[in-house]
Amino acid sequence: MTDVVALGEPLVQLNAVTPGPLRYVVYFERHIAGSELNFCVAVALNGLSCSLIARVGDDEFGRAVIEYLRARGVDASHMVVDREAQTGIYFVQRHYPVPNRSVLVYYRRGSAGSRLSPSDLDEQLIKSARIVHSSGITLAISDSAREAVYRAFELARARTFDTNIRPKLWRSPDEAREAVLKALKAGVEVLVTDPDDTKILLGVSEPAEAYRRYKELGVNVLVYKEGARGAYVFWEGGSYFRPAFNVRVEDPTGAGDAMAGTFVALYLKGVDPRRALDAASAASALVVGVRGDNESIPTPEDAEEFLRSI
Amino acid sequence: MTDVVALGEPLVQLNAVTPGPLRYVVYFERHIAGSELNFCVAVALNGLSCSLIARVGDDEFGRAVIEYLRARGVDASHMVVDREAQTGIYFVQRHYPVPNRSVLVYYRRGSAGSRLSPSDLDEQLIKSARIVHSSGITLAISDSAREAVYRAFELARARTFDTNIRPKLWRSPDEAREAVLKALKAGVEVLVTDPDDTKILLGVSEPAEAYRRYKELGVNVLVYKEGARGAYVFWEGGSYFRPAFNVRVEDPTGAGDAMAGTFVALYLKGVDPRRALDAASAASALVVGVRGDNESIPTPEDAEEFLRSI
Amino acid sequence: MTDVVALGEPLVQLNAVTPGPLRYVVYFERHIAGSELNFCVAVALNGLSCSLIARVGDDEFGRAVIEYLRARGVDASHMVVDREAQTGIYFVQRHYPVPNRSVLVYYRRGSAGSRLSPSDLDEQLIKSARIVHSSGITLAISDSAREAVYRAFELARARTFDTNIRPKLWRSPDEAREAVLKALKAGVEVLVTDPDDTKILLGVSEPAEAYRRYKELGVNVLVYKEGARGAYVFWEGGSYFRPAFNVRVEDPTGAGDAMAGTFVALYLKGVDPRRALDAASAASALVVGVRGDNESIPTPEDAEEFLRSI
Amino acid sequence: MTDVVALGEPLVQLNAVTPGPLRYVVYFERHIAGSELNFCVAVALNGLSCSLIARVGDDEFGRAVIEYLRARGVDASHMVVDREAQTGIYFVQRHYPVPNRSVLVYYRRGSAGSRLSPSDLDEQLIKSARIVHSSGITLAISDSAREAVYRAFELARARTFDTNIRPKLWRSPDEAREAVLKALKAGVEVLVTDPDDTKILLGVSEPAEAYRRYKELGVNVLVYKEGARGAYVFWEGGSYFRPAFNVRVEDPTGAGDAMAGTFVALYLKGVDPRRALDAASAASALVVGVRGDNESIPTPEDAEEFLRSI
Amino acid sequence: MTDVVALGEPLVQLNAVTPGPLRYVVYFERHIAGSELNFCVAVALNGLSCSLIARVGDDEFGRAVIEYLRARGVDASHMVVDREAQTGIYFVQRHYPVPNRSVLVYYRRGSAGSRLSPSDLDEQLIKSARIVHSSGITLAISDSAREAVYRAFELARARTFDTNIRPKLWRSPDEAREAVLKALKAGVEVLVTDPDDTKILLGVSEPAEAYRRYKELGVNVLVYKEGARGAYVFWEGGSYFRPAFNVRVEDPTGAGDAMAGTFVALYLKGVDPRRALDAASAASALVVGVRGDNESIPTPEDAEEFLRSI
Amino acid sequence: MTDVVALGEPLVQLNAVTPGPLRYVVYFERHIAGSELNFCVAVALNGLSCSLIARVGDDEFGRAVIEYLRARGVDASHMVVDREAQTGIYFVQRHYPVPNRSVLVYYRRGSAGSRLSPSDLDEQLIKSARIVHSSGITLAISDSAREAVYRAFELARARTFDTNIRPKLWRSPDEAREAVLKALKAGVEVLVTDPDDTKILLGVSEPAEAYRRYKELGVNVLVYKEGARGAYVFWEGGSYFRPAFNVRVEDPTGAGDAMAGTFVALYLKGVDPRRALDAASAASALVVGVRGDNESIPTPEDAEEFLRSI
Repeated sequence: MTDVVALGEPLVQLNAVTPGPLRYVVYFERHIAGSELNFCVAVALNGLSCSLIARVGDDEFGRAVIEYLRARGVDASHMVVDREAQTGIYFVQRHYPVPNRSVLVYYRRGSAGSRLSPSDLDEQLIKSARIVHSSGITLAISDSAREAVYRAFELARARTFDTNIRPKLWRSPDEAREAVLKALKAGVEVLVTDPDDTKILLGVSEPAEAYRRYKELGVNVLVYKEGARGAYVFWEGGSYFRPAFNVRVEDPTGAGDAMAGTFVALYLKGVDPRRALDAASAASALVVGVRGDNESIPTPEDAEEFLRSI
Repeated sequence: MTDVVALGEPLVQLNAVTPGPLRYVVYFERHIAGSELNFCVAVALNGLSCSLIARVGDDEFGRAVIEYLRARGVDASHMVVDREAQTGIYFVQRHYPVPNRSVLVYYRRGSAGSRLSPSDLDEQLIKSARIVHSSGITLAISDSAREAVYRAFELARARTFDTNIRPKLWRSPDEAREAVLKALKAGVEVLVTDPDDTKILLGVSEPAEAYRRYKELGVNVLVYKEGARGAYVFWEGGSYFRPAFNVRVEDPTGAGDAMAGTFVALYLKGVDPRRALDAASAASALVVGVRGDNESIPTPEDAEEFLRSI
Repeated sequence: MTDVVALGEPLVQLNAVTPGPLRYVVYFERHIAGSELNFCVAVALNGLSCSLIARVGDDEFGRAVIEYLRARGVDASHMVVDREAQTGIYFVQRHYPVPNRSVLVYYRRGSAGSRLSPSDLDEQLIKSARIVHSSGITLAISDSAREAVYRAFELARARTFDTNIRPKLWRSPDEAREAVLKALKAGVEVLVTDPDDTKILLGVSEPAEAYRRYKELGVNVLVYKEGARGAYVFWEGGSYFRPAFNVRVEDPTGAGDAMAGTFVALYLKGVDPRRALDAASAASALVVGVRGDNESIPTPEDAEEFLRSI
Repeated sequence: MTDVVALGEPLVQLNAVTPGPLRYVVYFERHIAGSELNFCVAVALNGLSCSLIARVGDDEFGRAVIEYLRARGVDASHMVVDREAQTGIYFVQRHYPVPNRSVLVYYRRGSAGSRLSPSDLDEQLIKSARIVHSSGITLAISDSAREAVYRAFELARARTFDTNIRPKLWRSPDEAREAVLKALKAGVEVLVTDPDDTKILLGVSEPAEAYRRYKELGVNVLVYKEGARGAYVFWEGGSYFRPAFNVRVEDPTGAGDAMAGTFVALYLKGVDPRRALDAASAASALVVGVRGDNESIPTPEDAEEFLRSI
Repeated sequence: MTDVVALGEPLVQLNAVTPGPLRYVVYFERHIAGSELNFCVAVALNGLSCSLIARVGDDEFGRAVIEYLRARGVDASHMVVDREAQTGIYFVQRHYPVPNRSVLVYYRRGSAGSRLSPSDLDEQLIKSARIVHSSGITLAISDSAREAVYRAFELARARTFDTNIRPKLWRSPDEAREAVLKALKAGVEVLVTDPDDTKILLGVSEPAEAYRRYKELGVNVLVYKEGARGAYVFWEGGSYFRPAFNVRVEDPTGAGDAMAGTFVALYLKGVDPRRALDAASAASALVVGVRGDNESIPTPEDAEEFLRSI
Repeated sequence: MTDVVALGEPLVQLNAVTPGPLRYVVYFERHIAGSELNFCVAVALNGLSCSLIARVGDDEFGRAVIEYLRARGVDASHMVVDREAQTGIYFVQRHYPVPNRSVLVYYRRGSAGSRLSPSDLDEQLIKSARIVHSSGITLAISDSAREAVYRAFELARARTFDTNIRPKLWRSPDEAREAVLKALKAGVEVLVTDPDDTKILLGVSEPAEAYRRYKELGVNVLVYKEGARGAYVFWEGGSYFRPAFNVRVEDPTGAGDAMAGTFVALYLKGVDPRRALDAASAASALVVGVRGDNESIPTPEDAEEFLRSI
């Protein structure tokens, strides 16, 4: 039995070694990333088993993704190698035009990863998992990928979801809202989201109000990220706010995935939501201090050491 | 009046800093390249005016291409910025699986550059140029790009062409042959090619025989590249073989373009074909010693210094 | 017609890759800089035409400067290639002995750039420009360069000036004062300066008092930079203070030039001085976050995105 | 069932980025290596299953080793994490004092890897493997490691061995000879060795004579490496010499392991010894062209492409 | 006559070029460090003569240490080259698991440096020095090194000491306490310590109380470091607190040594303790901004420039 | 007593990290070099004492030079720090326009080093040295430096000289000839030169003839370098030709100095001229394989290991 199964697109990340406009960047550093892949790395680091169901191309970058999953202890045996398409890539422009933020430039149209489809699902695996996870990105990358998520959620015993609405990947906010709400219908154990996405989905952004509404939609626990301010967790019986740690930013990309994966893993292990959010915030803080989305996600011991140091 | 107008796709090149399989490469060095862009740089370095007609995306990489053209003295005022597509990129894997050779991995499907079309042509510019140049790559990247080359060749006063048949870009050798032979129909002043392409185009590969056959197709001067062996030039009245210079290989990508551009520029300046081939071979030798396709193409003075040193 | 003509010395910058005393720096990163060159890049990025009148050596670094100007859309056709002298260079030592500051070490004595002279001026160009710009550095590098600025200011329709008094380049503060005040005599539309320079020039440093005095000297608009505190703009009819943005410092070199160039360009475009100073401060903040003086100067759109993010 | 089980010490390699004496090297590049680990990577790349039995420390470098094994498809489930000792490391000095050669500086005394012992062996795994492999290095690093090899060879169905006598690791040639000959006693299917080691072991160095003598000791197939000259294979019924490929040397470390692992894997797959040696030589040639011992070991397809290119 | 003689272990430092867990660091930057070596560099930069008595291996890294000492103006003529052991090394993991802190991983067990012994002492040199210095690290690395410190302190005219208790190097806090208190017995002119060490040594941590107690043990001047808060100095007749400077952290390793060496040197030169602590704090602040422990320690002029800039 | 005293200009070298025209080089690697400094490093590595008399600026690069001399065991106590001028620097462009050759671009006009003058000479030191050494470069950099060499040669007990005629540093070949011949007048124990310089000096270039003529001018031993072909040594009683070793070229700069310094040192130690030339050629071969002029000069043991490996 696998604890967690995730569906999404793994990508090769080319991170600018020097900050500033991409135009003048001469050296790029290669990392392996992707929202659900980052999530899986966090889950595995916290001691749960995790499978990623995804497609990569039959190329060197696809092989790099599979080797990376195996290295990090994520089950890659359900990965599909697609001979018709290439592994997707993206570039990270750092600290321009806004300091401490990154701009992502994707080469993923028609990528192997975006060709994920319901036929890629191992139904037995999905049915047996404690949780099936995906995100708004996977809903956006193609019709077949979206159908794969819906189908997997149908089969799943329980679900977690990160709304992750990237406006560039959708024709309109309405399209995004419809797709995400449909995913939530099956009932979501833990929902990770933020005020911008919630505004699109529910038309509100006040945290407590958001939780009330999400709960009506079947959400059990809500992780509500307010970026550089911090994050809330709401659950049956309580809520908690964790102010963000004040850290130097190298590249914030992946911070949300680290938070989601760490929180969900600890939640599944029965950790108190407050302590889970603390550790998830530590993971998030460590990720923003480096290039690469998941290399600095801490083990539980390292997260504790971080928290003790504050 | 512009001496040379070229049509093709400029690309951002991501060259592996360390040799070996791409999978394990951590750092990539950014260069600006593309067969016709390389050709233009060689032409401009040899003192002729040159315009590149091509498309780039409305993105940082597209801006990098245009800035690079301007820097190198190539007229970029006829470049088209395409808001619907991205600037194409490719990766260079070096010395694996064959030492001294490179493997190119393209992300150019649907790229801005591949959307070049007859409507992008400035007819006045093309008619007034001494020479219009393109290559088999531009014929291969899309139907509209191929039509653009045919149309430009129709309008041109004279033409030069580099066969550059990349099997992966064509459905079949037959498709490539047909497309290239159609381009040659208009009459080509200087043709640059090699035994592999000639085998596909004419079914022969012996140099003198090849020249005889190309001449029947309207080719005036033939540059016949035999790779690490050297290169021939055939012309009305003579032929000459220049053995390749024995140099250390960093990345051979672009060597053929440097040879083509240097030869054509010197030929247009009235240099004796033997001396033009010597300088073109020097350009080629210098390019294989560095990463990047065109930064080491020599000025005429530098090519002479190279040749004196032998 | 060119909007802006600037006179100054372009330099090759060798920026320490690692912070600390230059003695232990092993790697240097090459950039193209110089106060007026940086100014021109800012002007061109804001959509105005700009010519740099300057000298470089007949060497690789001189060619690098000219290629860089062309790349950035600055008119380099009035650049003079001096066969008798080398292109000037300088080294940047970062974060030592004072964190967040840089120490500049110049090799520019007798450089091509310092040999700028009145005979290098294209009078037609200068007379037709909307604005002629220079700085206290150009006044300091040689007698002939100083004369060139005086002559150009005489011919100009309007002038902007950045006082930029570098004590090491002058024999005494008195010498600097005399030279700068003489430049201001012709009447300056926009003056960019700071408390240190103003103390030398006028013996005062309080902002409003400084403006009153500069106005008497024929200055119309005053940009008064107070470094890490922020900057004022004073104009006929108002004044405005823009606190500096709190950003991580990689190398502050060039921040003042980015502010001057951006402000002047926007001012010429008729932008309200307050909004012009906001954008100029954004430019300044982005430049301090990178090595290199001008690669991170924003376009108007990027400056706006920066300002929206605050 | 696992095809191959290997016993040895995995090490973290710190390879000098620049050639010359280690004293002046400022940057080091981290790789994962070790003779048997390299062997295993070659085996896995050729499609056989392979387990490494070895110890690493309970530290970041130990974790790096285990992640690397998993990434490369080598079974790491029998690895032992030793809480009492650190993962061993070594430095590679390149091209000094002899061009094209490397000097290795080890920090492995008392390392976790050297504490391998008979109690670390999974007897079931060893008995079921087609082949158990080790090398003279493992015999040398400690008494317990030597005993582990002897015990594993006793249990094994068949054995392969690489003599790899490193004089610095032994008190005397006699000690090395005794230890290696004892390992050969159990009967070795494929022995990989060279003239220097053979001189120590048998007092001879002529290839055919060496084969005759090794055969008497129970060796079935002999791979006899003559370094830059090439390599022989001798087997019941024939012999074959493969001249070395002439390639640029970055770091020859690991070339012998790549040859051994590739040959043994192909031999186990029933490939003709001549073709196996060709591919093994290709692997060796690719490894010397890069830093790192095993990243450039080719897949069978890539080895074939290499061989076709000659 | 030498002003200062120090006893300790010089080490080669391999500092992670990128932050995050060591496991994913690919490039390491080599520095020369060690607590007493850093101390000596600070002393020499402040114009006093300083000898380091220590052992290195007869290897490239040992030669690097000796060359570095000579370069920095530290007398290396009493260094011992040990043919039986290697020069010790350590790795620096930065910003993980706690941002702004480093984790050190040593390979120094049995190292040449740890084999320092009383027989290595030049008694004449020690007796003639104004001050003999060592630290709690040297007490911890081996019995013979500890005896060397005790013997040197016996011979010395005066002593300075940095408690530097590294829990990992001791079997128990009790063992550390005993060893350090024994070293203090001889009377210490300047003691450098912090609350953690003082808690172990004296069971107290309040600064003034600590000073009272240390004074009873024969300490004359106390430098009491409170890390990111700042540092106290207590002396006969007064005390002073210097809040830490707020600087960006690259790697805090070595900051304490820079403070100790700078303070002791200035104290020996008769500088007022308040001004000495200011300069020592400046040294500390500059060191945390770079990789490497001692390259950014300032000269007195540079420390003054730093202090003027605040 | 010092064995060798050398006079010349130390320089900071900025070596292009990537080959090709300097214009496109982004990263430079800092080394310390200069013909006589390189010579001194070779002398010291071979176990003789050596003093460099030279000037550096009162700047970070000057301090780097002095630290480097000390590190390498060259006596820097007679170095003069010149407060009026900067330490000279130069750039190395590699493999362009001629593969395997370098182009040097100097910023040394008016440098501190070129201001060497007779008043900088410690007469006692010079009179007591076994040998005083300089080169044609020092004769060329300024009148005062030339006078310093003449004066030192007058005072010296014996002299060695490297003709090193750099055409760019002289107004005419005649000027160079006169200056060098005047230096030779005092009698030169060992002269190092090559065919090009000899053509200028004597009008001949055939080796034996050259030796005959130099002998008439008072030369005792002649080292006659023929570049990639090899080198001769002629002495009273014999001659010997050492073909150059065939090695990969990274940067040939400094190869001649390594040969001169190694030969002279071994000659002074009484080594047979043939063996001295072998070792000197090994030094030369090792230097061309790296960036930096003197880091790869071997110790006698390392040179022997190199020679044994051939």
